[in-house]
Amino acid sequence: MHERTMEEAKVSSFLFMAMPSTGAPPATFRMRRQRLQAALEARKLGSLLVTYPVDIAYLTGFRGSAGLALFARSEAILWVDPRYTLQAHEDAHGVEIVETKRGLVEAAGKVLRKRSLGRLGFDDAHLNAQGYLSLRRVLGGKARLVAAGDLMPGLRMIKGGEEIATMRAAGRVTVEAFEETLGLVKPGMSECDLAAELDYRARRKGAEGMAFETIVASGARGAFPHARPSRKLLEECDLVVVDAGAIIAGYAADMTRTLYLGKPGNRVRKLYSAVLEAQSQGIQALRDGVQAGKVDSAARNVLDKNGLGRYFTHSTGHGVGMEVHEAPRLGKRSKSPVCLGCVVTIEPGIYLESFGGIRIEDTVLVGAGGPEILTPASKTHWFLA
Amino acid sequence: MHERTMEEAKVSSFLFMAMPSTGAPPATFRMRRQRLQAALEARKLGSLLVTYPVDIAYLTGFRGSAGLALFARSEAILWVDPRYTLQAHEDAHGVEIVETKRGLVEAAGKVLRKRSLGRLGFDDAHLNAQGYLSLRRVLGGKARLVAAGDLMPGLRMIKGGEEIATMRAAGRVTVEAFEETLGLVKPGMSECDLAAELDYRARRKGAEGMAFETIVASGARGAFPHARPSRKLLEECDLVVVDAGAIIAGYAADMTRTLYLGKPGNRVRKLYSAVLEAQSQGIQALRDGVQAGKVDSAARNVLDKNGLGRYFTHSTGHGVGMEVHEAPRLGKRSKSPVCLGCVVTIEPGIYLESFGGIRIEDTVLVGAGGPEILTPASKTHWFLA
Repeated sequence: MHERTMEEAKVSSFLFMAMPSTGAPPATFRMRRQRLQAALEARKLGSLLVTYPVDIAYLTGFRGSAGLALFARSEAILWVDPRYTLQAHEDAHGVEIVETKRGLVEAAGKVLRKRSLGRLGFDDAHLNAQGYLSLRRVLGGKARLVAAGDLMPGLRMIKGGEEIATMRAAGRVTVEAFEETLGLVKPGMSECDLAAELDYRARRKGAEGMAFETIVASGARGAFPHARPSRKLLEECDLVVVDAGAIIAGYAADMTRTLYLGKPGNRVRKLYSAVLEAQSQGIQALRDGVQAGKVDSAARNVLDKNGLGRYFTHSTGHGVGMEVHEAPRLGKRSKSPVCLGCVVTIEPGIYLESFGGIRIEDTVLVGAGGPEILTPASKTHWFLA
Repeated sequence: MHERTMEEAKVSSFLFMAMPSTGAPPATFRMRRQRLQAALEARKLGSLLVTYPVDIAYLTGFRGSAGLALFARSEAILWVDPRYTLQAHEDAHGVEIVETKRGLVEAAGKVLRKRSLGRLGFDDAHLNAQGYLSLRRVLGGKARLVAAGDLMPGLRMIKGGEEIATMRAAGRVTVEAFEETLGLVKPGMSECDLAAELDYRARRKGAEGMAFETIVASGARGAFPHARPSRKLLEECDLVVVDAGAIIAGYAADMTRTLYLGKPGNRVRKLYSAVLEAQSQGIQALRDGVQAGKVDSAARNVLDKNGLGRYFTHSTGHGVGMEVHEAPRLGKRSKSPVCLGCVVTIEPGIYLESFGGIRIEDTVLVGAGGPEILTPASKTHWFLA
């Protein structure tokens, strides 16, 4: 693969995959930009510099891995390097396209210095220090830079109808690939091979790729919440955590199931039931306007009551969309409200050193008729030896 | 997959995959840290803050997705959050491990404020603006921050013996998976399916994943240098660009071949020969100490002489290692020398609108005995209908 520029170093390979491969209609992009304008006014920002490729794709349809866009009340400009000029003219909606052979920040600075910009929002969460220092230099005090890294996540958090339909498809492919792969699971299969088989089936069903490296963690390895698949072979009486998500048309799904290779005894059954009940309570707590922290505690309380709270070492969930981790965060101290149109994971898990892990996760839409599970695979997988 | 923190947003899923899965011996990490110390002294830096997870893994062996490390003459500290304490104690070499429940920057700042640090290097290429502004705040003027985003790439550029052995294996798996997949290629197969078959074979041969989303771009789509595989079916007389690389033990390979589905006529043969000759000249130019720009021009001159220079719209190559794009860059204006132990791609390509693309790429080691191709797949693939 040929080289990308410095600005792209921070864009993950997932993000490249995640760029929507099917263009939404121009009206969709227009509506998104109107929502952006409203958000700018609410924050008293005159304009916003958008540097994160996923956000540029969301607002304009342009899916290049590098670009810089300015959105102001009366104008919208997208700067691209020569590699992307053709693609930008084909794909981008509602922006003037400017090609530059120098750095994107330099080119934008030349224009920005001529405007009276007032408060200029920028993405402090994605722009690197180098870019930030360049930006300050090229502006030369002509605008007041205001950190606004949470603005775009707030917009992208609320999914539109097309996005929801696409995410249903991503969930469906994930479930089908997982359920077909179950037929192959048995002691002696390696974690890596299980992951490879699952990914292959998702791809053959139309996934553009996986939203993250599929996790298969068996036996004691399951106690590492971030375990990567290894050459370890599945063994009888292993708990096996399988965490995967397909990408369809640029949108991710995210699902975890925990298998048991044998007839589970009392201890495993009790632990599993507690996690399952925690997940169910988390899902039921998902209502329009609920505080994110309340969703977390709905799940966490179940594990606490079962004396398992200290083994639940992460938050209950996170938003999903063009990225597999986006707003809102469903953690202990998350104050923001969860809204209609949010798509989030609910994924309580427990991790017992030298014993193993159990995590159950679905991607769930906060719908008008209540929570809708987008990854409806069954949740009890015992493999009787 | 459960949530990661803000600092991790900039770490790609590839990077998670790319973390070495086999620990190198402690002596390797000690040697790397000695090289780091020499680099710090050469730049008159008292210490370096390392915030990029790949660099932390390179220096210590700790492969978490978040962490912050300080390397100074007389001490080395690694701050991690509670998710990673256990893993850090197991994997990290040569650093004191400090767990923090507050932000990593806050925790480090508390220690940093007590030291007389002088010039403190930081990674302006990866630290985001938010992190940079926090760092400035917590330091409160106690140290002079010096941008040093190019320091770690310079160290990682020169591969050691273990790294080279691993990269040979990554190249071998890439070649074998590619050559097996060739047996399936025929008109009517979709680009996506070709990519899925190739990736599957790489995984079954031991790849932990692919270094980037495999590119398959056929017919006119090949004219987009960054094309993603689509549902388009391969057709007779299509040129098909296939660009893929396996990851083995945390190291990437990167290889492109261009197929032709039929008996190529004069035009295709001439274009193909020119690219092949350009690639050959680029590879032959790879000697210890050669200026990177000279390698680029060795390849570029061939295409220029064939009147194809304006269709070669990117640089000739880039370093490969724990990341698929790293130092050195082999571009027109690259002044830095290419050294013994560098592993780079040589990948000239031409992109003709509405006709298609031809790119030929190998991963090549700059070895003592001359350039060594790590991805030695054959380079002429005509599929006679």
